[in-house]
Amino acid sequence: MAKTHQRVGHLYVISGPSGAGKGTVCKELLRTHDVHLSTSMTTRNPRPGEVDGIEYFFVSHEEFEEHIANGDMLEYAKVFDNYYGTPKDAVLRHLKRGRDVILEIDVQGGLQIKKKMPEEAILIFLLPPDLDTLYDRIVGRGTESKADIDRRFNEARNEIKLIGEYDYYVVNGVVADAANDIASIMNAESHRVPERVSELIKLYDE
Amino acid sequence: MAKTHQRVGHLYVISGPSGAGKGTVCKELLRTHDVHLSTSMTTRNPRPGEVDGIEYFFVSHEEFEEHIANGDMLEYAKVFDNYYGTPKDAVLRHLKRGRDVILEIDVQGGLQIKKKMPEEAILIFLLPPDLDTLYDRIVGRGTESKADIDRRFNEARNEIKLIGEYDYYVVNGVVADAANDIASIMNAESHRVPERVSELIKLYDE
Repeated sequence: MAKTHQRVGHLYVISGPSGAGKGTVCKELLRTHDVHLSTSMTTRNPRPGEVDGIEYFFVSHEEFEEHIANGDMLEYAKVFDNYYGTPKDAVLRHLKRGRDVILEIDVQGGLQIKKKMPEEAILIFLLPPDLDTLYDRIVGRGTESKADIDRRFNEARNEIKLIGEYDYYVVNGVVADAANDIASIMNAESHRVPERVSELIKLYDE
Repeated sequence: MAKTHQRVGHLYVISGPSGAGKGTVCKELLRTHDVHLSTSMTTRNPRPGEVDGIEYFFVSHEEFEEHIANGDMLEYAKVFDNYYGTPKDAVLRHLKRGRDVILEIDVQGGLQIKKKMPEEAILIFLLPPDLDTLYDRIVGRGTESKADIDRRFNEARNEIKLIGEYDYYVVNGVVADAANDIASIMNAESHRVPERVSELIKLYDE
C-alpha cells in the first residue's frame, strides 16, 4: 500500500448539555472504532461499582489543587463542591503517537480546550433531537427533584446557545447513527490536506 | 424525528491527475450514495456508445462559445482543439433544492471553481497510492504512444503539486474505500455548524 506522511492524532471534544447522551454515544463509538477516550479526574466520591482509573481518576481536593497549580490539567471546573477535569499528560502522549483522542466533557470545558489548543482541537456538539426529548431524558434519570430537573433543563437550553463556538454538530436521535456521524467526522478530518503540504507532495516526487 | 433547519446542498469538486481514478470512484459513489453528478459539456465528438446528456452534452464549437459569452459556464478549458466545461444552470438548481452536487473535473477546473465559489465549493483531491501505480494506470489504457504516456505522467506529477489548494485528499488504492472516504467527507460537511447559527438555535428555543 501507499506510504503515508507522518501524522499526529486529532483531539476531539464531544460535548453537549446533559440529556444529549454524550456518555452513551461515546461508549458506542469506543465499541466500534479505534479511539482513545480520555479519563477525567474528579474529587467526588466513587459511586457503587465505579473503579479508579476507569470511570474517573478519584483524587483528594489537595491532590487536584496541586495538579492545577502544576499546570497538569487541560481543563477543569468546580461544580458545587467538587472538581472535575482532564489530565494533560495522557492526552498529549496519545496524540504524539498518532492516535485520535476523545474528550467527553461539558460545554464550558469544551470552550476551555478550544482556547488552549485552537489548532489541534475539533469540537463536536451533541444535540438532543428536540426539547421534549431533552426534557424526557433529564426526567428519565429519576434521581432528581422537580427543581433540579428544571434547573438542568434551563441550563441545557442555555448551553445550546453556545453551539456557534463549535465546529460540528450531531443530533443524537438514534445512538448508533450519532456514533457513525462522529466517526465520519473523524475520518473526514484525517483526510484534510495538511498545513505542511510538502511532506505529502514529497511522496509523489521522486 | 427532529425538525432540521433549511439547508442548501454542498458543491464537491473531485479532481486529481489522470490515473487517479476519478471516473471509477465517482461511479461507485453514485451507485452507493444519493448525490447528483454534474454532466459536463464538450465540443469533441462522441465515441462509440457515448450518449448525449449522459457522458457529456455534445455541442458545436459555436454553441460552446455562445455559452461562454453568456456566462453559462462555471468553468471551462480548451484542451488541444476541444472545449470541456461545466454548465452552471443544473448545478445551481440542484444546490438550491438542498442536493449535494459532484463535479468530476481536472485540477485546473477545480481551481477555477474555488475562485468562483469559495464559500460553496469543497475541493477533494484524488491521489494514486504511489507513482508506480500511477504510471501503470496511465499505461493500462493502452491507447497511447510512449511519448503521450510520458507527457501524461509528467503532467500528473505537476498537478499533484497543486494539492495545497485543496481541502481534502483521498488516496485511491481500493475504489470502494476511496468512495467511502468521500462519502465520509460529505457526511461530515453536512454536520458543520453553519455560519448562520441562529436558525439552528431557534429549533431549541421555545
